[in-house]
Amino acid sequence: MITSPSSVRRSERSRRATLDAALELCTEKGYGRVTVEAIAARAGVSKKTIYRWWPSKGAVMLEAFAEAFVGATPFVDTGDIAADLRTHINAAVRVVSTPPYGPAYAGILSEMHHDDDLARAVLEQLVGPRVEAAVGRLRRAQEQGQVPAGADLPLAVEMLYGPVYYRHVLRRPAQDEATVAALVSHVLRSLVTGDDAAPAGTRDDAPAQG
Amino acid sequence: MITSPSSVRRSERSRRATLDAALELCTEKGYGRVTVEAIAARAGVSKKTIYRWWPSKGAVMLEAFAEAFVGATPFVDTGDIAADLRTHINAAVRVVSTPPYGPAYAGILSEMHHDDDLARAVLEQLVGPRVEAAVGRLRRAQEQGQVPAGADLPLAVEMLYGPVYYRHVLRRPAQDEATVAALVSHVLRSLVTGDDAAPAGTRDDAPAQG
Repeated sequence: MITSPSSVRRSERSRRATLDAALELCTEKGYGRVTVEAIAARAGVSKKTIYRWWPSKGAVMLEAFAEAFVGATPFVDTGDIAADLRTHINAAVRVVSTPPYGPAYAGILSEMHHDDDLARAVLEQLVGPRVEAAVGRLRRAQEQGQVPAGADLPLAVEMLYGPVYYRHVLRRPAQDEATVAALVSHVLRSLVTGDDAAPAGTRDDAPAQG
Repeated sequence: MITSPSSVRRSERSRRATLDAALELCTEKGYGRVTVEAIAARAGVSKKTIYRWWPSKGAVMLEAFAEAFVGATPFVDTGDIAADLRTHINAAVRVVSTPPYGPAYAGILSEMHHDDDLARAVLEQLVGPRVEAAVGRLRRAQEQGQVPAGADLPLAVEMLYGPVYYRHVLRRPAQDEATVAALVSHVLRSLVTGDDAAPAGTRDDAPAQG
């Protein structure tokens, strides 16, 4: 079967309506009380259509959240790594502390603890690509001499994102811009390579150096 | 009514039995399927007794987890802040990546997103006191000249704990000892006070300097 341009458009409309409905219902009812039935009814699509595209409510929510998150947190390159990381982390903080995205992500994180497929999807569709993009931005900064050669870039990404997750999952007030600025400058300052750094290849998450 | 020593002993036995039963059931059934009824039956106490002491299943789990966590992660002071932080963070990583404690804490973190009382209890009974203890240990290191005066100690604590939460909630493999060592040395290295640090009092979580 050949997919005609108009059926692609129709599919994209249904997909968009489904994602929007999922987020709206998350705001209105709370993640836990949203059902695939309710999403289908709100979006004006059949339950069967939803299950043809997504395996679970969590998967719908993940696609909706990931699309919003990735769109709102580009890795810009103005040539100033500190400024660009501040821009990025401030945007990430804003998304996860704004309804419906924050509550939706909290719901996804909860659900992935007893849904192995969703856990895999979060890693493959959201976290993995974002970590790769962050490491890529830091690697360009390295090439420009703004980050020391040999710096532990995956560790830097965990030090930047860790505190954002920490406050999100503990429901603490999100970081303000001054706190994000302090976090970024601390992380960049920490990235010197000294004799206390583990030799390449001995770390559990040591990246291949490109 | 005067509480006799034997009734205190009896109460402590029931409390202990309740906490142990909660953790056992969490291992066997998964957090989500544990009920207060099942905890009571396993512990050999009445449901009424449990609700006299705890408002919810989450509160029972929190007390069980917090007791194990605090017991396993003391803030020792050998005079070497780097070694002591490694000891502490390695122990914390071990607890949150070991059943039944890891799954129990994951369940608590999920539940606190739609249980405001539990969220408050996590902060008051677990996170708040542990952050205070961590800041206290760093402050002693400051007095001993191992950490610069004026260093942002609450930020340091978030940089140490953030990555532990990050991997826990994302179900990533826990940090190994080399990664914890690298994290601790990076965080300590970041704690210089420079002109990019926000002035005291402008940060959202700026501590009163003692």
